Amino acid sequence: MRLKLFTLVLTILAFNVRAQNDDSLKIRAIADEILLHSTAYENLRVLTKQVGARLSGSPQTYKAETWGHKALDQAGADRVIEQPCLVPHWVRGGKDEAWIMAPGKKNQPLDILALGNSVGTGPKGIQAPVMLVNSFEELEQKKASVKGKIVFYNARFNDTYIKTFEAYRDAVGYRAAGPSQAAKYGAVAVLIRSMSHSADNNPHTGSTRYNDSFPKIPAAAMGLQDADRLAALLEKESLIVFLKTNGKMLSDTVAHNIIGEITGSEFPDQIITIGGHLDSWDPAEGAHDDGSGCVQSIEILRVLKAIGYKPKRTIRAVLFANEENGTRGGSKYAEEARDKKEKHIFALESDEGGFTPRGFGVTMTPELLNKLRSWLPLLAPYGISEINNGGGGSDIGPLYRELGTPLAGLQPDSQRYFDIHHARSDVFEAVNKRELELGAVSIAALIYLVDKYGL
Amino acid sequence: MRLKLFTLVLTILAFNVRAQNDDSLKIRAIADEILLHSTAYENLRVLTKQVGARLSGSPQTYKAETWGHKALDQAGADRVIEQPCLVPHWVRGGKDEAWIMAPGKKNQPLDILALGNSVGTGPKGIQAPVMLVNSFEELEQKKASVKGKIVFYNARFNDTYIKTFEAYRDAVGYRAAGPSQAAKYGAVAVLIRSMSHSADNNPHTGSTRYNDSFPKIPAAAMGLQDADRLAALLEKESLIVFLKTNGKMLSDTVAHNIIGEITGSEFPDQIITIGGHLDSWDPAEGAHDDGSGCVQSIEILRVLKAIGYKPKRTIRAVLFANEENGTRGGSKYAEEARDKKEKHIFALESDEGGFTPRGFGVTMTPELLNKLRSWLPLLAPYGISEINNGGGGSDIGPLYRELGTPLAGLQPDSQRYFDIHHARSDVFEAVNKRELELGAVSIAALIYLVDKYGL
Repeated sequence: MRLKLFTLVLTILAFNVRAQNDDSLKIRAIADEILLHSTAYENLRVLTKQVGARLSGSPQTYKAETWGHKALDQAGADRVIEQPCLVPHWVRGGKDEAWIMAPGKKNQPLDILALGNSVGTGPKGIQAPVMLVNSFEELEQKKASVKGKIVFYNARFNDTYIKTFEAYRDAVGYRAAGPSQAAKYGAVAVLIRSMSHSADNNPHTGSTRYNDSFPKIPAAAMGLQDADRLAALLEKESLIVFLKTNGKMLSDTVAHNIIGEITGSEFPDQIITIGGHLDSWDPAEGAHDDGSGCVQSIEILRVLKAIGYKPKRTIRAVLFANEENGTRGGSKYAEEARDKKEKHIFALESDEGGFTPRGFGVTMTPELLNKLRSWLPLLAPYGISEINNGGGGSDIGPLYRELGTPLAGLQPDSQRYFDIHHARSDVFEAVNKRELELGAVSIAALIYLVDKYGL
Repeated sequence: MRLKLFTLVLTILAFNVRAQNDDSLKIRAIADEILLHSTAYENLRVLTKQVGARLSGSPQTYKAETWGHKALDQAGADRVIEQPCLVPHWVRGGKDEAWIMAPGKKNQPLDILALGNSVGTGPKGIQAPVMLVNSFEELEQKKASVKGKIVFYNARFNDTYIKTFEAYRDAVGYRAAGPSQAAKYGAVAVLIRSMSHSADNNPHTGSTRYNDSFPKIPAAAMGLQDADRLAALLEKESLIVFLKTNGKMLSDTVAHNIIGEITGSEFPDQIITIGGHLDSWDPAEGAHDDGSGCVQSIEILRVLKAIGYKPKRTIRAVLFANEENGTRGGSKYAEEARDKKEKHIFALESDEGGFTPRGFGVTMTPELLNKLRSWLPLLAPYGISEINNGGGGSDIGPLYRELGTPLAGLQPDSQRYFDIHHARSDVFEAVNKRELELGAVSIAALIYLVDKYGL
């Protein structure tokens, strides 16, 4: 431990002082250009308000691709490529509905959203007794009584984590694997408590993944107020819930990664990727998730041009297809890189919202991590106070797995992310212009340093 | 510089490892209690939605005092004191109105808010040619042509600062001193560009201070869209603006600092103050400014009780009267402390909004600053990455001036503050529950350390 610290201190001291000063001025120029003249916020307005929700395969998928192609051209890309890939095509199929059927009382509506990829109930819906479990362990204990029931996973988001993605990682299994786990014991449908700590009642959708060994049963999310209400009622009496969802998986269809490139002046074969994903869930506008990452990636090309910096290496801004329910865009990008024997020296993703930047999380060797940490004094004035071991992004993960490319993910402040994640509230108005821009500043600064010094 | 760094390193190393471990557990208990059971958000809801705007002297002043007294009792204060002080009593007096009178065109409304403490135009309003200046320097150059005009200060907020309070400090002089500076050269009224970088058109009010040597002239703020529109029109042609404001300063009235106290078990005569201000501007609910600071201060008493920590020193949560247009509450608190020869060892204010905490700014000796910095490893897990030299708060400033009390101010992320500061948008819905609570966690952690180790 002490030796590592010592090595880090030496690395920082060894970093040439004059270079630091030049870099500090260049990064200041990047920040000034973005904070005064960024097009990121206006680009986001157009994407969210004129294109809107853009689930893979929806008509908006293609409107978004056209938007992205044009925005990359306008940002000054030397060329823009559309890289086709097959994507899943799930449709919600209509309005999701649910009611609590309390004996002798008026039916009470539940505000639900079917989970992405889930099957529908059929036009007549499903009506069945509800069984609450707080965990997979509890499901296991009660497996004998699951048959014929709607299983209600009421696992709470752990609010004591300071970084909210840790709470998400603990809870997301109920959404991903919960339906098949319940189907294994004969459940007829699943309701889940949303992965959120929002004070509102919006349900939060997201992918579920069926295990082909068990029947595919309908599944939907509830907001926290409804989940608490249902749980409180179930403490007093048995309840029947009526559920109607209309989800359907159609045949795979074609979508595209939209790739804008500035060719490197010295090492054009060395590729640096910056990306976000262009698809979004359907209930809202995908403003934070991940319109923000897209417009920040585009902004990096624009700002380097605007300040007159000519990258030594090839910089690519990639708007990935289909992160939400397949990650097919990210996989395709890495496969093609592998097949073409491209040299990817670094990839960075922004997919944790357009909030004030706090740090980066990286997946790379300890030596490279130390190199990045030696740049912290240059990044700190713009809000980056930590570079953490671990992180990257779903879309760039395949680059690491296929080619061993070092990865980084922007880590913005995470307090508000799960208020809006996959919910109706993920709209343009929830994004603050300066927070979005400061994220772009931090990314551009790191990309500049990686381009200049290599990795 | 190197010697200082060396001293700091030694201080950090000298800080007993076992103590650090105990403290780390205690601070974790504080965080868990607040993140799971805080009453801060619900207290804020009541203050903003049931009391609302509470400018000094308004009927809501007293409703807010009653609310604060009760909330401090419920938080577990040993006693709650109401400390009277005389406060200015300014009233807006009705709806502010303004129109651009373009020759041969329909009048165009401007969305304005009279500045706090400003005089009204009288019932007939003022109609005069507008003269734009971008700075006091430009006013000086053009002073010969100011007579009879409405001076429009269009000084832009400097968006290139990363910490937005620096932009505010640069710009606020136009609001505070602009009216008298213009009146000195014969202006009949003043319009100012709001101190904000908000993308919306809300005007931002705030105090102006007349210089008694010159006539008191009406003054109002405009939002950024209107300011840009007016400036663009003035590039093309001369314009007359009609302005009607109704502000009036009534006689001073009595308000109260509301002080909740837990008496120290070992050193009851050593006082630690935590505070926010209870008054707010009138256009909205004063949710961030400074309802947040009030409910956080109350929360500190609650959490210490809840985790069973008995402070060695006396801890006071103070809801100060009249920060916005007089700071009379803060002055009164310090005067009484001086007269009673109280021993104030530390005072902390939260008045920069209920956003995610990033650091503290302090006014104290370098030795004490080093002592606080030695605690950074304990605070960092909760988002505090820096303790900066310089800072405190308007309400606790008099304690430093009267008694030399070391001060600290919570420094939350500042990106959204000037979107809502003194504007209609400073409402409960603009406050995020977790961000507010994490601010309370950071304050409580620092107060715990100061109480345990002294200063």
